[in-house]
Amino acid sequence: MKPTENEGTMASAILVTGGAGYVGSHTVASILERETSPDFEIVVVDNLTNSYRAEGQKKPEPIRIIEELTNKKISFYELDLSDKQALSKIFEKHSIECVIHFAALKAVGESVQKPLEYYQANITGTCTLLEVMRSYGVFKLVYSSSCTVYGEPERLPIDEGHETGRGLTSPYGKSKYFCEEIMKDLCTSDQRWKIISLRYFNPVGAHRSGRIGEDPAGIPNNLMPFIAQVAVGRLPELMVFGNDYPTADGTGVRDYIHVEDLADGHVKAVRLFHQPGFSGFHAVNLGTGTGYSVLQMIEAFKSASGRDIPYRIVGRRAGDIAANYADVSLSHRLLAWRATRTLEDMCADTWRWQSNNPQGFKSS
Amino acid sequence: MKPTENEGTMASAILVTGGAGYVGSHTVASILERETSPDFEIVVVDNLTNSYRAEGQKKPEPIRIIEELTNKKISFYELDLSDKQALSKIFEKHSIECVIHFAALKAVGESVQKPLEYYQANITGTCTLLEVMRSYGVFKLVYSSSCTVYGEPERLPIDEGHETGRGLTSPYGKSKYFCEEIMKDLCTSDQRWKIISLRYFNPVGAHRSGRIGEDPAGIPNNLMPFIAQVAVGRLPELMVFGNDYPTADGTGVRDYIHVEDLADGHVKAVRLFHQPGFSGFHAVNLGTGTGYSVLQMIEAFKSASGRDIPYRIVGRRAGDIAANYADVSLSHRLLAWRATRTLEDMCADTWRWQSNNPQGFKSS
Repeated sequence: MKPTENEGTMASAILVTGGAGYVGSHTVASILERETSPDFEIVVVDNLTNSYRAEGQKKPEPIRIIEELTNKKISFYELDLSDKQALSKIFEKHSIECVIHFAALKAVGESVQKPLEYYQANITGTCTLLEVMRSYGVFKLVYSSSCTVYGEPERLPIDEGHETGRGLTSPYGKSKYFCEEIMKDLCTSDQRWKIISLRYFNPVGAHRSGRIGEDPAGIPNNLMPFIAQVAVGRLPELMVFGNDYPTADGTGVRDYIHVEDLADGHVKAVRLFHQPGFSGFHAVNLGTGTGYSVLQMIEAFKSASGRDIPYRIVGRRAGDIAANYADVSLSHRLLAWRATRTLEDMCADTWRWQSNNPQGFKSS
Repeated sequence: MKPTENEGTMASAILVTGGAGYVGSHTVASILERETSPDFEIVVVDNLTNSYRAEGQKKPEPIRIIEELTNKKISFYELDLSDKQALSKIFEKHSIECVIHFAALKAVGESVQKPLEYYQANITGTCTLLEVMRSYGVFKLVYSSSCTVYGEPERLPIDEGHETGRGLTSPYGKSKYFCEEIMKDLCTSDQRWKIISLRYFNPVGAHRSGRIGEDPAGIPNNLMPFIAQVAVGRLPELMVFGNDYPTADGTGVRDYIHVEDLADGHVKAVRLFHQPGFSGFHAVNLGTGTGYSVLQMIEAFKSASGRDIPYRIVGRRAGDIAANYADVSLSHRLLAWRATRTLEDMCADTWRWQSNNPQGFKSS
């Protein structure tokens, strides 16, 4: 397999579900930045649950901004994947070659409060998408999965052969695991399917332009946007959940990966579909292979932003694990991909986005 | 807890999904045979995937026959659980107090061939039902689960504390496990729910009237209907999958339970909802606690039917386990229920049904 950077046409159309969200929008940007064919098209569907559309605009802000940045058009449909008929119409209208499926609810804590909503959105949404794809003869799918499927790691770094599904503590994590199992079984039953499930570690950072980035509703669930909102003064202080973990400084260690690296991983996954003989279900970690602790993240962000990050140590949070980082050898081997952006890049790009847009997309 | 046999009113209406199927119809019969209140109502919804409606009849045969046997009326709706609007209308129209949820696809082998159909029917159907129940303030559910959720037993007899979800080999089994997890998470998030998941071992037998029974489409997947069809001459011989298992006679051992006992277990589960303070998710085995081998089943059926059962030993079937039988102590303690019908009853009742109806409901 030799994917080339300038291979031109990727496909006639790529459907991106949840393409107005955080990882989705960066992936759309990454594809359009690389795509040179004039016939190529990106079709985004999103129900706007986790995206913002400005008053009077037809397209959500991230999509509108990517069109500006790339000087290319994106077809956008406001749509929930539960609406099978509306989804089918999009397959009628566009010549879809493959799908990148981000659309999902993703807040771990919220999923514990609203499990039924999470299972319906994430499982039923995925099953409906798979049904519609099959009925239109589309069998290539990149799925947005998570290292959460591994549960508590039995070994580090975690490779893709690590057991999945045991001891999962949130409906969010279970929904990702269930969807992977559904897709595995589907690939076993029907050789036409080619499905790549990308297991993200901890996506952070923002587009280098500083114009698109993570824009969580309410209090952020994840560390990096929380730090960024403290740095910019939107939140008073950071809570560090536990400093008694068996790690170097006692705080939790995670494999943070720059969202632009993650987006590039999707581009590589789509290229893999062109490889002769490629088929079946493949799960691939997307991480850097390196873990950083909460305190290391705070220090790095202080340097990048020049701001103080007041923090307070509080008790451990239920369901959190001590440390987690990826074995990234399969992603090198299969996708010819590796993360290239550093922790400094992650912090600098997050800060550029956050300081230019203190209220997220509503600022623009 | 002291459920009494003659407590009279169970509820204003019980909704039975999949009530025209094998276990569903016997449960409907069992409830109506015990119910003495004139205000009480059974509402059956079924999409007729695994039931038979005779030409010119409004109701499927099992429902029609139960009405004859009990001299009571059953409200029947042909409906797929994916049709949320139609399902909602039934909650509008009837005063539903609790739901017994059988509706599902259940053929293990077919589920490997058609995983997406199984996941959609079993998971999405269940989630949609749960959503509609909640929106109408109905929080009592008896769920039709299976000992399949245990995978390969780590110990025998299997108690409800045995791990679930590991090494499941079919989409059917996974769909039951996933639904249990969804219902557990739902009960954790919302204290109003009362869900009893009944993990069936191997349901066999038929109503003592010989007028309703198991009526599988095509070649039966399960041992007992296969034996019965050989006995009645509809199939030439039985295939015994493996005689080299570590069991007394080398053939697989299962916990067969009479479907009328199983049906009674559902009646007891519904009564448990009346117990003050009962809430949350409870999984309960329904079995006899005794395992019989394939060869023992053949012998018992020969005696009951007076017919020869030609059989041939063939290789093991992928995914089959050596032995499986239930720890039934929780069902005694929690439901005040135990199986009372013997292996001879199971065979005699199956034979009565099969010999009176050699082509199943189409015979009647």
